[in-house]
Amino acid sequence: MEILSENRAFGGVQGVYSHASEATGTDMTFGLFLPEEARGGPVPILWYLSGLTCTHENAMVKAGAQGWAAVHGIALCFPDTSPRGDGVADDEAYDLGKGAGFYVNATQAPWAPHYRMWDYVAEELPRIVTRNFDVDEGRQAITGHSMGGHGALTLAMGRPGRFRSVSAFAPICHPTASDWGRKQFTAYLGSVEAGADHDATLQMRQLGFDGAVLIDTGTNDQFGDHLGTEHFAAAMAERRQAGQLRLQKGYDHSYFFVSTFMEDHLAFHAEALWS
Amino acid sequence: MEILSENRAFGGVQGVYSHASEATGTDMTFGLFLPEEARGGPVPILWYLSGLTCTHENAMVKAGAQGWAAVHGIALCFPDTSPRGDGVADDEAYDLGKGAGFYVNATQAPWAPHYRMWDYVAEELPRIVTRNFDVDEGRQAITGHSMGGHGALTLAMGRPGRFRSVSAFAPICHPTASDWGRKQFTAYLGSVEAGADHDATLQMRQLGFDGAVLIDTGTNDQFGDHLGTEHFAAAMAERRQAGQLRLQKGYDHSYFFVSTFMEDHLAFHAEALWS
Repeated sequence: MEILSENRAFGGVQGVYSHASEATGTDMTFGLFLPEEARGGPVPILWYLSGLTCTHENAMVKAGAQGWAAVHGIALCFPDTSPRGDGVADDEAYDLGKGAGFYVNATQAPWAPHYRMWDYVAEELPRIVTRNFDVDEGRQAITGHSMGGHGALTLAMGRPGRFRSVSAFAPICHPTASDWGRKQFTAYLGSVEAGADHDATLQMRQLGFDGAVLIDTGTNDQFGDHLGTEHFAAAMAERRQAGQLRLQKGYDHSYFFVSTFMEDHLAFHAEALWS
Repeated sequence: MEILSENRAFGGVQGVYSHASEATGTDMTFGLFLPEEARGGPVPILWYLSGLTCTHENAMVKAGAQGWAAVHGIALCFPDTSPRGDGVADDEAYDLGKGAGFYVNATQAPWAPHYRMWDYVAEELPRIVTRNFDVDEGRQAITGHSMGGHGALTLAMGRPGRFRSVSAFAPICHPTASDWGRKQFTAYLGSVEAGADHDATLQMRQLGFDGAVLIDTGTNDQFGDHLGTEHFAAAMAERRQAGQLRLQKGYDHSYFFVSTFMEDHLAFHAEALWS
């Protein structure tokens, strides 16, 4: 593993690291914030999955999460959203290919060899982070924004027992019924139907989540029609899933929205991680 | 004035606006955060001047200031660091020309016609902001980072009575004795000596500041040799200037450093602005 940078931040360290990934067959880069408490032994970790077009860096510099993570003594990990590099397939559209891995394992050409972001985020990266840093494998939580909110919800329900709590900012909730989902599942997996296991609304109906759930979405989200929030809200209510879905008046899809509610999300996860 | 964007943030609005500037003879863009309190009448304002290579946008998305401004009911303004546009002189170096206005009025070709950032930030923009938004002209404070810290200190001492408090993150403190200063004063003003009125250490020796001063600089600042912190520290002590100069262990020059101490700076200015 290579250290790309380490900056002191909020009493801890914000690092950026690169490593060869077995899952994607490429080098992968991630950000990791370790609070001061990590010097005294393993700390809980919150995974932050990012949205379309993002790298590991966007949320790391714009979401305002480290200060609240420091308050609660929690590590933060910011994975990339796709494989990168010259040999990796791409598309001209912003919502397919690089920056748009959608947290699935592609089965279709030309995506199949490298686009294995499910395996990377669900298996390989947690192993690397918990083995190389003072992070407690037994206390994990997950959050994300937009496509990353989709990733957070589907990982939380798809890996029962792994995460104590899940939250999301303006998540894509029902990708099999959205332009943000149908296109990507068709390309990466061969059909919309093949994405059923990666649809938070369908998972909520069938599986639910054994822990606390917090969703924030803005009432002025310019991509609101793509999110399918209403379907996830109905599924949560039908299932009697413990949790909160908050519609925040006047907020849009930007990092200004994300950073506004970051304090609440860190406090929410801290309660689950430290109990 | 043209609205480029307005995003709801921390209960208020983060806007970006463009206007024709008389000072620079170009269009200029600035960011303005108005807290929720601004709906009930004029609020105090904190000016944030940015460093080399920055536009109005960097600090607006990376410094983590809006949340704390909202806590204290204070507006934030993020000016650009130079004139922009095709007809504006530039240099290949990152520290001269666009992104490097140094908060002076250039007298030398090719800079003279547009590089009038002192007039822009000291006179024109405050007039525009206080006339067009619910901002209280009588309650102003100023801060900045690196070159913007230089701008904040020199404006605070150069416009006595205007600002109730001044702070800075890793400011360039003694530009007439630094590579970050000598080059720019020679280019923009014709000589290093012509920059004497824009040197915070010289101003502190001669003028001081009638209000509170707070400086934070990291002990691991990679540009520490360019900052001249030791000269400003000595000048503050010689003058018996009320204020604090804090050397923060292990911190560097990045926005991770800035955002770490933003909470303290907003609380510091709030005390002066609301008293």
